[in-house]
This record gives sequence, C-alpha cells and structure tokens, in this order.
Amino acid sequence: MKINAQRLLDNLQRYAKIGEAQKTGVERIALSEEDREARDLLKQQMLEAGLEVLIDRIGNMIGIRKGLRDVPPVTMGSHLDTVYQGGCYDGALGVLAGLEVIQSLNDANVITEKPIALINFTNEEGVRFAPDMMGSHVFAHPELLDEILESPAYDNAQDTVGSRLKAIGYSGDMPCGSMEPDSFLELHIEQGPTLELEKTDIGAVEMVQGIYWTLYTIKGQANHAGTTPVPYRKDAGYAASEVMHYIGDYSRKANSQVLTTVGTISFEPNAINIVPEKAGFTLDLRSVDYEALKQGQIDIDQKIKAVVQAVGLSLEREEMVRFAPVQFDKEVVGLVADEAEALGLSVKRMPSGAGHDAQMMASVCPSAMIFVPSVEGISHNVKELTHPVDLENGTNVLLNAVLRRAGED
Amino acid sequence: MKINAQRLLDNLQRYAKIGEAQKTGVERIALSEEDREARDLLKQQMLEAGLEVLIDRIGNMIGIRKGLRDVPPVTMGSHLDTVYQGGCYDGALGVLAGLEVIQSLNDANVITEKPIALINFTNEEGVRFAPDMMGSHVFAHPELLDEILESPAYDNAQDTVGSRLKAIGYSGDMPCGSMEPDSFLELHIEQGPTLELEKTDIGAVEMVQGIYWTLYTIKGQANHAGTTPVPYRKDAGYAASEVMHYIGDYSRKANSQVLTTVGTISFEPNAINIVPEKAGFTLDLRSVDYEALKQGQIDIDQKIKAVVQAVGLSLEREEMVRFAPVQFDKEVVGLVADEAEALGLSVKRMPSGAGHDAQMMASVCPSAMIFVPSVEGISHNVKELTHPVDLENGTNVLLNAVLRRAGED
Repeated sequence: MKINAQRLLDNLQRYAKIGEAQKTGVERIALSEEDREARDLLKQQMLEAGLEVLIDRIGNMIGIRKGLRDVPPVTMGSHLDTVYQGGCYDGALGVLAGLEVIQSLNDANVITEKPIALINFTNEEGVRFAPDMMGSHVFAHPELLDEILESPAYDNAQDTVGSRLKAIGYSGDMPCGSMEPDSFLELHIEQGPTLELEKTDIGAVEMVQGIYWTLYTIKGQANHAGTTPVPYRKDAGYAASEVMHYIGDYSRKANSQVLTTVGTISFEPNAINIVPEKAGFTLDLRSVDYEALKQGQIDIDQKIKAVVQAVGLSLEREEMVRFAPVQFDKEVVGLVADEAEALGLSVKRMPSGAGHDAQMMASVCPSAMIFVPSVEGISHNVKELTHPVDLENGTNVLLNAVLRRAGED
Repeated sequence: MKINAQRLLDNLQRYAKIGEAQKTGVERIALSEEDREARDLLKQQMLEAGLEVLIDRIGNMIGIRKGLRDVPPVTMGSHLDTVYQGGCYDGALGVLAGLEVIQSLNDANVITEKPIALINFTNEEGVRFAPDMMGSHVFAHPELLDEILESPAYDNAQDTVGSRLKAIGYSGDMPCGSMEPDSFLELHIEQGPTLELEKTDIGAVEMVQGIYWTLYTIKGQANHAGTTPVPYRKDAGYAASEVMHYIGDYSRKANSQVLTTVGTISFEPNAINIVPEKAGFTLDLRSVDYEALKQGQIDIDQKIKAVVQAVGLSLEREEMVRFAPVQFDKEVVGLVADEAEALGLSVKRMPSGAGHDAQMMASVCPSAMIFVPSVEGISHNVKELTHPVDLENGTNVLLNAVLRRAGED
C-alpha cells in the first residue's frame, strides 16, 4: 500500500507558510501564535479525517481513528514546534506523515483491528520553555505536570507554560498519560549527514544517544594584558582554551565512543587588552554507550580540575542535562527495517544523535523511529532540506509498519 | 624641594568625585559630561595657578607658566579620561601631579629659565572613540586632525569626536602641534605588579613595549552536535581552542620575549548543541624587542593558517593596531633616575607594558615617564590603588626633574 505523495508534499508546504522564515524556513516557537495557527489547522484536518480529537493537560493533541477492537492504539507522532529560524521538516514531517497515513487508510477504506492514534506533542524543541521534549516527557511522567505548567519563558518570566496553553486555547482536560498506546512510531529527518553520505534510503533507529550537558565557569583574575608578566597571571581564558582543546581531541582519538562539542563560550570582561577573569563554556557529550558516556564525563572533569588547580583558578560546574542512552524496542525496529526492505528501500540500523519524543515514549510502550536523509545533514536551520522522494519513502514505511502492527481487517 | 602632599591627595579626591563609580572608582569617559566637568575644574585651577590656558583643535588643554626666557617649555601631562568603571589614578595622577608641581613652584616663588607647560590630553583611553591616545597622537601628527574629528562613537554613530568637543565646549582654535616642547615627562601608575613585588619606589621608564592587536575569525560550518560524526565536522570553535592554547603557551615558553593575551572571543551561533560555524578572537601581542614582536606575529599566524587549512576551514585576519616599541630619551630617563636617587628613593629602569601619551610625544621632543607602584598591579578597575606615599614620591621626582630641566633662576 502507498500514500498520496502529492498530498503529503502540499500539506508540508501549507504548514511551512505558518511562521515562514527566510522563504525556505519556519519559525514556529512552541505556544506562540504561530503554534496556535498550526494546531488549529491540524485539529481541523484531524476532524475532517474522522478522528476523535483529544487535548491533554500539557496541550498534546491526540487524534484517534477507531479500530475494530477497543484496545490500545498503534500511535504515531512528533511535533509542530520549531527552533528560531528552523526548517520545515524537523517535527512537522512526523505529524503530517501520520496524518497522511490516516488519510491514505481512509481513501482505501481500510479498517484496522487496533485503533490508530496520531499525537502532536507540545514543545519538543524547548526554545522558550524548559524542559525540551516537554509533551512526551509529561505523557510518560504525568506526576511532573504541575511543576512544568509553572515553567517560565526564558525571555519573559510572566509567560508560563500554563498561561500560554490557556492563551492559545490548548489547555485541555484529558489527564496526561491516560491513553495507553500499543506502540509508538516517529518518522523524522536524520538531522545528520550519514544516510545521505552512505546513499541509504531509510534509517531504522535502534536507540538514542545519551546526552550530558554541563556548563563550566573558570574564574581567575582580570589583569592588564600589557603590564602583567605571565607568572603573575590568573588567565581564565587560557585555562579554558587548554580544556577546550582537550575536549575536542577527546572525541577525535582513535576508537573514541563519544561525541564532544563546545558550542558556547563567553569571556569576562571580554576586552582585547585585559586578561580574562572569567571563562564560561558548555560541554555537549554524547554516546550510544552508557559506560563510555559516564567515563568521558569523568575524564573531562578530571582534566578541567587539573588545569584549574595547576594555576590557582577556581571552577564552577553546573549539570544542565543528564539523559542516559535509550534503547528502542527490537520488535518495532525490526518491523521498520522489514517494511522498508519490502518496499525495496535500503536500510541502515543506526542510533539517533539528537533527542526525540520517541525516547520519552520508549518508557511507555514499544517504540522506534524511522529516519530519512537530510541534505548535507543541515538542520535547525532554514536551509534544512529532505528530498521529496525521501519524504515519500519514509511515509510509506510508516504506513506499512503501522498497518502491519494495527492489523488489517 | 618638595611638593605639598596633602594638597595633591585632596585634589585627587576632588576629581575622583567627578564620575564616581562604586565608591573607589571613576567612570569619566572622554568627551562626556563628566569629562567636561573635570576639564572645567582643571581650567579654573590652571587659571588660579596663573597659567595661560590654551585649547587646541583636538581639545587638548595646555596651561603655560612663563619662564625667564621665551623658549620651548618643559612639559608635563597625561589625561583625565578613564575607561568604563575605571580607577582614580590612571591618567588623573599625571595631570594633577603636574598641577601640584606648578602650585609648589608658585608657593616657593620659583622662577625658571624655561617656561613650564601642563597638558591634559584628549581621549587617551579610546573607549568610545578610536584611536586611543588621541590627543597626543594628533599633537604629534596634526595632519590627522580632520579625519579624527569625524571619528564616530562605537555606541552611537551620530556622536563624533568633533561634535562632542563642541558639545562640551572644548573645540579650541589653537593649531594642533603648534607648541614645540623642550621635553615631555609623564608621571603614571605602573598598572602592573612589578614595582610592588620588587619593593621599588620609582620606575624610570626607558621604553614602551610594541603592541600588535589582531582580530582572527575562523569560519567553518554549523552542524548538529548530536548527529554530525567527527569526520564530517568543520568546527571553528575547536580550531580556535587549538590556536588559543598555542598562543598561551607561546609566551609561557622559557626565554619568551613576548607577552600574549587572548582577551576576547565569540562563537556563532553560540548554541550548546550546535558545532560553532564561526569563532572570532583577538590576539594582544607585546614585546620590548621589535624583532621578537615581529617573529611572534609570524609564528602565530603560521600556526593559525596550519590549523585552519588542516581541517578545511577559512580564516579572516584584521590588523587592528601595529605599534613598534618606542624608546624614550636616554638623557630624560637618566634625569628621572638621578632625581629619584637624590631623594633617597629606589629606582628600577623598566619598560612600560601599556601605551601612554608619552610614547606619542617621544616623536616630538625628548620624553620619558615616571612610574609609581600599583597595588597588586590592578588597573582599569575600580579597585585600582596607589599608596599615598608613592603618589607623593612620584610627584616629588616629577617636580625635581622638571625643575632641573627648566633651570632655576
């Protein structure tokens, strides 16, 4: 069975206009007016497709297509929110492909044994409100709801998740996590270069890398760059450069099992002729191997402490994120790979480097992800692009995997 | 002969109130209202001390005490402007000590052979308007006047040097450089830790280090930190960290003849989970040895090019400042050392690590500087401090050196 590719592409274009940025991109921040507009359109399309539409208390939108039996639904989903100046596929593809699957089943008058559900999760990106993957996180951990509803916007403490949900009309009354899915499948763009470089059609995602984010602040003393001999300096910037160099080398060693990135840095006072008093930088450390992840963190922490102590500086360290690697369900991963092969597509079993709603759902029900190639691996960027044939292939894999799992009449 | 130490200290305190910052500091940005207030007070005090007051076209204030002969004046001076959140001695000491010298000569009814002049130079710090050492620079190079009058403020292009000089009433009509000094002496705080650490009273400054400032911008490609394997990265931040580490090590090698500082850095997009696309940082390179300065710049440039080329990045390089080392006049330096020793003070012949108006005046007339100790070497900071006894000692050296050079009746 095949989806209607033209309808899918047209629909992706329709949503890309909501929050359009720099012609090819989208800026549709979670809980913004643009988010409301996209949600309103999705709700209308869900109703037109005959779905029962439920909104839970964290604003997740759940559309249910009845099956022959009253059992847990086979569930698809992703998110409609984006980063600032983002692309039009990250998130939206998983939601709109799910809608296309339902429309295609409707077109073919297919009735499944199990119900099928489609979820648009709230605030996956976390750009204005922490934490990210918010909707799926609360779906899996309803006990966090009250606390997260109080979460303030980074840019305006008056705005909370709860107040913005009310403002855009998506503060629902369905208890979070009250629906028990049979399974969960998320179609997503890879956001990395591997599938394209290896000329592979489909990624059957077996796991999500573990992610540790840490903010380090090294403190020394500001001194005049021209008048302070080297032995008298407490140069926080020089210490930071040594550590950052070590961090970069750490993932470039042969057989390294981790990825390291220093993505942000700031010096104080940040003046050309003043020795930096303070240097703050972040470490993004990832691995598919939990032991390697923990050991990498230990090694890097030890190096920083040694550098800082050697020159009489001080160190502050803030753990921002600690996600262990998540394994997806072997059976559901196998289903994705089988259905892709049955469609004549090439498949690579691979990890996800980025975090996704599916990793939260993995603690609720058997879950997996389907990746399609990203041109040049570019994402979180208005230049984000996945070729139409890949959008179509991924959606066909989703359709057939869901159909197999839900059981045809 | 001795100065009136209490009057000097009281006067320093009086000026410290004009633009007072955090109780112990001063913020008196060049050409601001606070600068106007300090200039007005100085003009009044110059007139009360019987000086003829002239304002040149770049706003330098020149007060002249007649001598017996109509010959070039022995000249003292420094600047009343400060950096943001600066101290109350950097600059102000040299001007107010000069005023105290004249008041002391008046008190003792001393008439000198040569005239004596005191200059308050415009905008030595250069915090709002480029270039720094502006007043002395134009004094030495009057041909630059018209261009520099057009120089816009960093924070508001509507404000130019010329417009601000008019606004505060110090756009004078004396042609720049039209006064020919016999010699120039600047008393200044060391702004470094050497005199204090070596328990020395006076620095007889023989030269000013050469200064090269360079802005480097390394360009790579932004990529997702979780999904981009290391071989596919063009990480501008990692390349910058390797170069910065090299730069720091360069001046920490045994027998290094240079000082290196990376004082500023910026990443783009500066996001925790995005590989930096751009890394900009500055190099402050100094040496008393011109050959070592030039070789250091060559070595560092070569390292940067090698790092950037090895990983397929690109580089932009902007030369911001190129000052060769400046030698002061041997005779005037010797005069400073002799007069200090005659007063029973310990003296160290030393270079200046920072730039000063005296280095501009060195191309106009025989020049030198007198340094007094800075507590913990702290400067450009509200905690800047020089002990009263050192302020007094330095001013007494200035008095006696000027008196010797000007010739007593």
